[in-house]
Amino acid sequence: MRFFLLCSLLGLLGACEHPTQSSQTEYSSQPPLYTYDVEQRIADLGIELPEVGSPMANYVNAQRVGNLLFLAGKGPRRADGTFVTGKVGADLDVEAAYEAARLTAINQLAVLKATLGDLNRVKRIVKVMGMVNAAPEFEQHPEVINGFSDLMVEVFGERGKHTRAAVGMGSLPRNIACEIDMIVEIVD
Amino acid sequence: MRFFLLCSLLGLLGACEHPTQSSQTEYSSQPPLYTYDVEQRIADLGIELPEVGSPMANYVNAQRVGNLLFLAGKGPRRADGTFVTGKVGADLDVEAAYEAARLTAINQLAVLKATLGDLNRVKRIVKVMGMVNAAPEFEQHPEVINGFSDLMVEVFGERGKHTRAAVGMGSLPRNIACEIDMIVEIVD
Amino acid sequence: MRFFLLCSLLGLLGACEHPTQSSQTEYSSQPPLYTYDVEQRIADLGIELPEVGSPMANYVNAQRVGNLLFLAGKGPRRADGTFVTGKVGADLDVEAAYEAARLTAINQLAVLKATLGDLNRVKRIVKVMGMVNAAPEFEQHPEVINGFSDLMVEVFGERGKHTRAAVGMGSLPRNIACEIDMIVEIVD
Repeated sequence: MRFFLLCSLLGLLGACEHPTQSSQTEYSSQPPLYTYDVEQRIADLGIELPEVGSPMANYVNAQRVGNLLFLAGKGPRRADGTFVTGKVGADLDVEAAYEAARLTAINQLAVLKATLGDLNRVKRIVKVMGMVNAAPEFEQHPEVINGFSDLMVEVFGERGKHTRAAVGMGSLPRNIACEIDMIVEIVD
Repeated sequence: MRFFLLCSLLGLLGACEHPTQSSQTEYSSQPPLYTYDVEQRIADLGIELPEVGSPMANYVNAQRVGNLLFLAGKGPRRADGTFVTGKVGADLDVEAAYEAARLTAINQLAVLKATLGDLNRVKRIVKVMGMVNAAPEFEQHPEVINGFSDLMVEVFGERGKHTRAAVGMGSLPRNIACEIDMIVEIVD
Repeated sequence: MRFFLLCSLLGLLGACEHPTQSSQTEYSSQPPLYTYDVEQRIADLGIELPEVGSPMANYVNAQRVGNLLFLAGKGPRRADGTFVTGKVGADLDVEAAYEAARLTAINQLAVLKATLGDLNRVKRIVKVMGMVNAAPEFEQHPEVINGFSDLMVEVFGERGKHTRAAVGMGSLPRNIACEIDMIVEIVD
């Protein structure tokens, strides 16, 4: 208030800036989230992001509300369009399932890239639901879903660390080895 | 600031409005989300929304945080209070399970109606978790959950398109054929 | 605006306060959410919160976005670090599984305490995903997850009532009896 009055009394019409406006300017020139380029990091890891397939039904790959981005469940789709299939603990061992979860992460990165344009806009991976198509006696779900989580941290660093659940499903579409969805915080 | 000072110097005590107030007025007179009446659309589809049952335990049907509305999981409850039950792929085929998912959608619409008062307040269906009570070898979960997704798009149009996961559970309460929860963005 | 001008014209440099500042003061002195102390309530229930273990993989126990707090899935971990294990409906009955879900709730309270510092900051339990490691024919998932929900209401009262899904998984890590994650609304 004293600031306003001082400006007013002195008649310095051009010299005073509204403080809120200047702080908005600072906000729009905020520093980048990363000390490195996320997309270069992905290239350095030898990862090529695949094309994102259109959902075959009445749903979409990503939906934004505020700064939260909700991603649909995805599976371990190879570059040729086929999927890694089978029950983990019966048809696949943990190592193969880890790779399937990592492949699923690459597919989700492709969805993020297609949605955001620039992966440097990912502020934080918030929540991951890691669903393993597992034999009833299987017990190593965390070791499988680590294939997804590890890649997120390789790519996004500390910002890639998320909350998660790693659980065993009774069955999955087309017998895919895993299905993983997630929630991401983004910036404009 | 110049706006404030101009008012101040001219002494136009009654002529100046605070700019924030006028933009708030614009917000409250925002246009409707739909070019049609959502509740009339439901009636046109021949759908009668059932009564919403009270949860039998220490939980609630819907919880709002900001403009996000979280809905509890619901099942395929018929108007007479009974449920569609059985393992999909063993006791039910895909067509019967599609209808069960559609029936579940009708139950969630009833929860939305009871919570919001007016279904035209649904800005967007954000996320759907479609859980099928499936036989271990079942692979057509997307075709089942389409019964839910298709109805949401019939009712809400483009605003009904959501992200989703369609997965197979090992078992469900009372052996219901599916359980589906969702997150919805709403307006006041 | 008139308020600003009145101050300006009278030259009462020290007498006028910016109205926004005073409303911020009111906000920071908002009344407490509870009519009782939540942490005393927990002690009165005879519950001792355990140490929170560090996640063994690239994930975290809790992640905040705005006023939403997302918690990772937790299981029925005893104070000695062992877990309640077994398939519900085969190795465990409903009563034992109810206690396992209650124990899981205690572990999530410990995560909340470690994250928030003060459990009186919990504004609302929003969403609970209750996943039971169940035999394929098991049907009483709600009665199991009530062990979690009941404790939340004992501790947080009406603010503890949440939306939830109670479902049966095909398998869970280390064969734990249940895994439960949740979303919580908090205040600063």
